[in-house]
Amino acid sequence: MSGWLKIVGIGPGDGAMITPEVSQALEQATDIVGYVPYVTRVPARDGLTRHPSDNRVEIDRSRHALEMAAAGHRVVVVSSGDPGVFAMAAAVFETLEAGPAVWRDLDITVLPGITAMLAAAARAGAPLGHDFCTINLSDNMKPWKMIEKRLRLAVEADFAMAFYNPRSRSRPQGFGRVLELLRDACGPDRLIIFARAVSTPEETLKVITMAKATPEMADMRTMVIVGSSQTRRIERPNHRGAPFVYTPRSVPG
Amino acid sequence: MSGWLKIVGIGPGDGAMITPEVSQALEQATDIVGYVPYVTRVPARDGLTRHPSDNRVEIDRSRHALEMAAAGHRVVVVSSGDPGVFAMAAAVFETLEAGPAVWRDLDITVLPGITAMLAAAARAGAPLGHDFCTINLSDNMKPWKMIEKRLRLAVEADFAMAFYNPRSRSRPQGFGRVLELLRDACGPDRLIIFARAVSTPEETLKVITMAKATPEMADMRTMVIVGSSQTRRIERPNHRGAPFVYTPRSVPG
Repeated sequence: MSGWLKIVGIGPGDGAMITPEVSQALEQATDIVGYVPYVTRVPARDGLTRHPSDNRVEIDRSRHALEMAAAGHRVVVVSSGDPGVFAMAAAVFETLEAGPAVWRDLDITVLPGITAMLAAAARAGAPLGHDFCTINLSDNMKPWKMIEKRLRLAVEADFAMAFYNPRSRSRPQGFGRVLELLRDACGPDRLIIFARAVSTPEETLKVITMAKATPEMADMRTMVIVGSSQTRRIERPNHRGAPFVYTPRSVPG
Repeated sequence: MSGWLKIVGIGPGDGAMITPEVSQALEQATDIVGYVPYVTRVPARDGLTRHPSDNRVEIDRSRHALEMAAAGHRVVVVSSGDPGVFAMAAAVFETLEAGPAVWRDLDITVLPGITAMLAAAARAGAPLGHDFCTINLSDNMKPWKMIEKRLRLAVEADFAMAFYNPRSRSRPQGFGRVLELLRDACGPDRLIIFARAVSTPEETLKVITMAKATPEMADMRTMVIVGSSQTRRIERPNHRGAPFVYTPRSVPG
């Protein structure tokens, strides 16, 4: 038997957003590796070993997956969303590069998934319908000054902005500083979207102006999207819930 | 019968990348609206009317879709990739906002898809594994100066960059200027990926340095990804084809 490693994205939560090629990989796997809540989403079956692991052990997990693939297993590394966006793919390649040369001959593929930012944008309308940027607000892996610099440049470029990992229990302060910086740079009327746990039973969506945004509106399950200066809101008076938000395709010359 | 409108993404080409919720919408539709090649990807069947239209008639197409939904049809607007990323969702919301108030009461949803940038990134490895930006290089809808400004700021922010619509027959010159600007700003060793027609039989993938990039390497079916200063290449001497490219999750402080 010849082993392989597939690094896959299982989308934001709803099984109806898992692509058929990812479902097939999960069915063919002998071993599933990943963070506990994502591995748990793959049903147990004969012939499948599930290897759930804790958060922040991405390199150990990657090494384990590569070793098993080298030993002939059919290994799937699961991420939520898309594996290439603030998820496991980069960790596996970091581990691969640092590891034995023979690992480079392994059959390794990445299968894309619906990343949280696009699922959240779809729920709100089309806030990322024009040029945008995507920033991880956690300073676990980069200096805080770099986050602030990127935010300032993104505002100057007038990008819409999608933020992953806005706030966690271990980083309660940073997101407040982000909101302050953006309020100063974009003004109080800029639109901001808080999309929490999209496509799960706990889904919530909030569309407000920057003036009304508070840090408590985000947690680790929240995707935050900030509009560009062109982003617009369409009210729907007869609908419960949020208005539509979209960024027009064109910018006046 | 109560009408609805679903704005869906059918991914980059391969049916195995279409999510089940999008497949279900296509099965339930009475009418499919979109650009010819995407509508053609939906098989004909009894009870389904396909309305293919030409490129650059996004607003007419959106109006037609909204009118049919208002008349009780079950309408799907198809985009390739994700509908919210340089695709039909923003056009539908522009049309909705300018149209009769009653359209705002329609049942309208956006169903995300695998956008070209994430499909291309997956083929290459994980080049978008850290902060990045996404820019449409067509100046049909925005001033060329804005594109150049965004490129300069994106380089200053050290984002990886994903470019849609790099080059077309009607815009043969712009992409050469983009490459020149980036070569000046990033230096000759910066990695650049040309991913053409990903997940179709015509798929090609090229990973080179900026020094060797030429405008002819891109066309309208090409997704271009430029690494950040941190992006790395992993050679695979025993593999035909491209090396892996990834952007590490962390940046030194």
